[in-house]
Amino acid sequence: MIIEPAQSPLPSDEPHDPPSPSPLPGPSRRTLIAGAGAVAGAGVVPVAVGAFGGAEAVAAPVAAGTDWAACLTVARAILVRDEEDEPLVPRYADILLRDGLPRGRNRRNVLVVGAGPAGLTAAHLLREAGHRVTVIEANGNRVGGRIKTFRAGGHEQAAPPFADPKQYAEAGAMRIPDSHPLVTGLIDSLGLKRRRFHLVDVDATGRPAYRTWILVNGIRVRRADYAAAPQAVNRSFGVPARYESVPASRIVREAFAPVRAEIEGRQGKALVEGWARVVQRYGHMSMYRYLTDEAKLDERTVDLVGTVENLTSRLHLAFIHSFIGASLISPDTAFFELPDGTGTLVDALYERVEDLVRLDRRATRITHGNGEVTVDTVSEGRGRRGVERETFTGDTAIITVPFSGLRHIPVTPALSYGKRRAVTELHYDAATKVLLEFSRRWWEFDEADWKRELEAVRPGLHRAYRLGRTPHDGSLLGAHPSVPRGHVSAGQRAHYAACRHVARDQPEAARVVGGGSATDNPNRFMFQPSYPVEGSPGGVVLASYSWSDDALKWDAFDDEERYPRALAGLQEVYGQRIEVFYTGVGRTQSWMRDPYAYGEASVLFPGQHTELFPHIRTPEGSLHFAGCHTSIKPAWIEGALESAVRAALEVHLGG
Amino acid sequence: MIIEPAQSPLPSDEPHDPPSPSPLPGPSRRTLIAGAGAVAGAGVVPVAVGAFGGAEAVAAPVAAGTDWAACLTVARAILVRDEEDEPLVPRYADILLRDGLPRGRNRRNVLVVGAGPAGLTAAHLLREAGHRVTVIEANGNRVGGRIKTFRAGGHEQAAPPFADPKQYAEAGAMRIPDSHPLVTGLIDSLGLKRRRFHLVDVDATGRPAYRTWILVNGIRVRRADYAAAPQAVNRSFGVPARYESVPASRIVREAFAPVRAEIEGRQGKALVEGWARVVQRYGHMSMYRYLTDEAKLDERTVDLVGTVENLTSRLHLAFIHSFIGASLISPDTAFFELPDGTGTLVDALYERVEDLVRLDRRATRITHGNGEVTVDTVSEGRGRRGVERETFTGDTAIITVPFSGLRHIPVTPALSYGKRRAVTELHYDAATKVLLEFSRRWWEFDEADWKRELEAVRPGLHRAYRLGRTPHDGSLLGAHPSVPRGHVSAGQRAHYAACRHVARDQPEAARVVGGGSATDNPNRFMFQPSYPVEGSPGGVVLASYSWSDDALKWDAFDDEERYPRALAGLQEVYGQRIEVFYTGVGRTQSWMRDPYAYGEASVLFPGQHTELFPHIRTPEGSLHFAGCHTSIKPAWIEGALESAVRAALEVHLGG
Repeated sequence: MIIEPAQSPLPSDEPHDPPSPSPLPGPSRRTLIAGAGAVAGAGVVPVAVGAFGGAEAVAAPVAAGTDWAACLTVARAILVRDEEDEPLVPRYADILLRDGLPRGRNRRNVLVVGAGPAGLTAAHLLREAGHRVTVIEANGNRVGGRIKTFRAGGHEQAAPPFADPKQYAEAGAMRIPDSHPLVTGLIDSLGLKRRRFHLVDVDATGRPAYRTWILVNGIRVRRADYAAAPQAVNRSFGVPARYESVPASRIVREAFAPVRAEIEGRQGKALVEGWARVVQRYGHMSMYRYLTDEAKLDERTVDLVGTVENLTSRLHLAFIHSFIGASLISPDTAFFELPDGTGTLVDALYERVEDLVRLDRRATRITHGNGEVTVDTVSEGRGRRGVERETFTGDTAIITVPFSGLRHIPVTPALSYGKRRAVTELHYDAATKVLLEFSRRWWEFDEADWKRELEAVRPGLHRAYRLGRTPHDGSLLGAHPSVPRGHVSAGQRAHYAACRHVARDQPEAARVVGGGSATDNPNRFMFQPSYPVEGSPGGVVLASYSWSDDALKWDAFDDEERYPRALAGLQEVYGQRIEVFYTGVGRTQSWMRDPYAYGEASVLFPGQHTELFPHIRTPEGSLHFAGCHTSIKPAWIEGALESAVRAALEVHLGG
Repeated sequence: MIIEPAQSPLPSDEPHDPPSPSPLPGPSRRTLIAGAGAVAGAGVVPVAVGAFGGAEAVAAPVAAGTDWAACLTVARAILVRDEEDEPLVPRYADILLRDGLPRGRNRRNVLVVGAGPAGLTAAHLLREAGHRVTVIEANGNRVGGRIKTFRAGGHEQAAPPFADPKQYAEAGAMRIPDSHPLVTGLIDSLGLKRRRFHLVDVDATGRPAYRTWILVNGIRVRRADYAAAPQAVNRSFGVPARYESVPASRIVREAFAPVRAEIEGRQGKALVEGWARVVQRYGHMSMYRYLTDEAKLDERTVDLVGTVENLTSRLHLAFIHSFIGASLISPDTAFFELPDGTGTLVDALYERVEDLVRLDRRATRITHGNGEVTVDTVSEGRGRRGVERETFTGDTAIITVPFSGLRHIPVTPALSYGKRRAVTELHYDAATKVLLEFSRRWWEFDEADWKRELEAVRPGLHRAYRLGRTPHDGSLLGAHPSVPRGHVSAGQRAHYAACRHVARDQPEAARVVGGGSATDNPNRFMFQPSYPVEGSPGGVVLASYSWSDDALKWDAFDDEERYPRALAGLQEVYGQRIEVFYTGVGRTQSWMRDPYAYGEASVLFPGQHTELFPHIRTPEGSLHFAGCHTSIKPAWIEGALESAVRAALEVHLGG
């Protein structure tokens, strides 16, 4: 439910590649190896001569032991098709949005473990179909899983998280692709409003402006300028001459072309088989291996595209994870957001089943068999009563707990070998957000705005910032009259002074609405809100959004140090002067440190799609499995909803 | 400085493989691709027909762009040789243990950032050679970095960490290989005692007994029995028939044989070139890729060796990391430990330079150039005075901060491209230990001991445990009269009751001294102490030692839940009855969450040895770099000492 690595926000006037010829399926390497005297690798079949830069793309040898049936299973999960290759989404949409589950089955007593979007949705469908449902949720004060809005009120009855009580910001899911029909349909059917989320900054007419910054290797350039003239940035990575004039997003697109050729223009069964071939040929590869061995990119070019297009921190993870994301969400995909936060979707889902949900009950042990499921739970143990235990019993259960958490829940009798292995080994990636509140939306300012507002702090300050003649001791943090006093602590000022990037340069006014910048400093990716919050002159900036190793490095800091550090990284991109609007209030979310998420989402290691995925969603006796990790849209609400309908059907139709 | 993945503790009477023929160096894949009409992969040269199981081993194609010079650099770092391939260790040993740095140079003002073993050692050498040295250490109350003993007293003046004030246990470095001459020499020259660390459990005569357990897929077997008859365990993974009777350690050894053949029996320049070929051919591969693509192991066999031989959590990391570890530390390697803990080594190193060390000063910014280095620092901000800042200035500096931490320290002017990239991308792995204290060393018990001690709790208890008729509510936690009251909290009892593994089985008495067991439950690896602590009838067990994803999953629990969970996992292996001796006191160390370590050690991703390593240790103007991550012995004290002597020489001889 977290956003994917930033899609390349580049102008679409770049030439598109001619489609590559489709490959001949070669015999698997295993077959060749088994043949007496065979030269290993001779079965490698050239796929296509790339239309790009002279680099040749070569089909990968099929990994030893990759089973075609497993590849088909994964392909069908990618496309959400049944075993006859028929699309499931229309059926799911009918159930989710219109008809509900078919009527007239035996009433069952169903335990749903976890009140994220999958659990809340499955619970609603099953209750409507006449079953008795209990939802067990670990959190003591909220539901929604990795949909979490820092806000006042909501079903959490939360205290205002920012200095301005009107402000809110997303800890988790923040954008919804229009290519995801279940979630967009659900939002509409629940009567919620949605509006465009600007992944790319827009101009006054709402068109993409590409004015946000890329700041890498000490070079700061607006995205539109980089797309038009990438030479300075590309040279700073030392890329070979043939890549000097090619924007990073295009290098990535070209690098993926031979794989895309397997699926482009195909439909029905041919599309399923195309995806299965992609899984078979590339499923065992990391992104690093694909880019170096298959796309033949040199290490400098890998570093360029990794830094600018956000591949670096996931180079060691499965190539097809990122490829699937890029394929199902094209550069033309529109994104939506919910006014007042994605948490309003949770409020609506919760309202339907609130009477079924037991908060503050975390599953610690599952016993099943003989037509009964028992779930032992503990409370968080806050308040006077300490840790409480409670045991729930049902006929059947839907487990939506991420496998990273399920790993620590003993199940008796033991799950099947395949499931245990999936629970143990499924990789969950880290993601961390650092959000900072400002009393004015300085990113929308032009230079005249800056002059006026800085002079309001003190005469001459506009010029002093431009000349780099302002104090570095943090004394100007939150110095603007609009900033409410009392939130910038002495510790924040000390940390700020000790770590901020000292530089003389002062970029011109950003003048952007929405969108985000990319940098090689520890912040990595930063996003401005797409809209003002009504009645508030300020705004909350996602000052740092990072994944994997980049994210884990943020997790060691306490808040008093984290927020000034995030501010310093933001200043390196937007200029030191933004500090006068900093309210001293930040919020942060490390999904790896979240005690019930244990990670942002299941981002698989090479090989795990074929080795683990087929075991993830299969029921085990009366235990059923849902959650975005049981789909091939991990981190997306759509995947959670697909799984909710599937698991509810399994339970309803007899599991 | 943390121990490496457990070496396979198997009897050495297994047959050794005949050496494989050495490979012909093939042209690189890149060369082939560039040739018109070349069939990709045709340059792949068969290395050897494996002596094992009929599987063929095939030389890896050389990764595109792998530079022979970089491979030689890495090879020399592995072997600790200079650019003429001459061994550096004898020279380093002379400096470290006998002569110190050569005399007669200009007196310089040296800042050493970080007081781990590298920083403390470099500081001592430089001061002895006449330089003025200041050591800046982030911790407010201790030095030693990832050498850390939970103990009473020591230079940390720590309060007793366990119920029995005599007890201690290692949070970090716990074993020292006798193949590491600098650290063993240093221990001896400092007059410290060392004794054998029993990686494998021993009998009364001190010989390996292999009586510790393997518990996987619900099958519990002593290591000696597994080595003699691995069929039941191996079949539980569904391995193919040809591997059913082969112990996991032998499968791994055979799988590595073609790579070992590149270096075995070679000396001098030929050995350096052998290692360089290993780096060139395999440096871009993950362990997963090596085991599947090169060694042709099927996924079930990979799962077997991954689970039993501790490869699973690092399958996505560089093959050569684990291969180097396995090569430099043979199954015959003896390990040492220090009586009273590895922290006593830190005490001795600290004593020599205590007057030079500024505690509670964490580097937050480094400025260099014009013959001057400035390091800004902050304090931890504990106590009344809040966060303090202090700036240090010198002529030159040795930076020993892990790159995971250096990533968040701005350096002005910017470091070179190669260094920046290394700082940003170098992967640090997670490792987490959970230690539990017991009032008796139950692992040494025979059945008569158990009977006597359990009857002392209450008559009939021995039999009740055997029949699985004891309460599951945690009421017997710490029930033995030897356990001091008051440490088992109500919360611990509740968590224990809620998560413990419910099973009827009761294994026979373990009767082991030292060594460790392996399991597929979340604890993964567990170690008993090699010796009793003098004057104490109890002991501290390393109940869980895990890495990478396995470790991160432990990090979400608070202590009140973590210790009962670790106990439950230990009970699954050793039986429920051990609970009566649990004192209720545990200690835990997550190196990923340590605010100054940010990880256990630099365990590189595929490709990083050639792409990043050559840039890691090169000086940048007056900045020099030390610490285990600048060696190819990350996590080992030896690597830190190598780097300390190297960096001290650089500074002393003119850097």
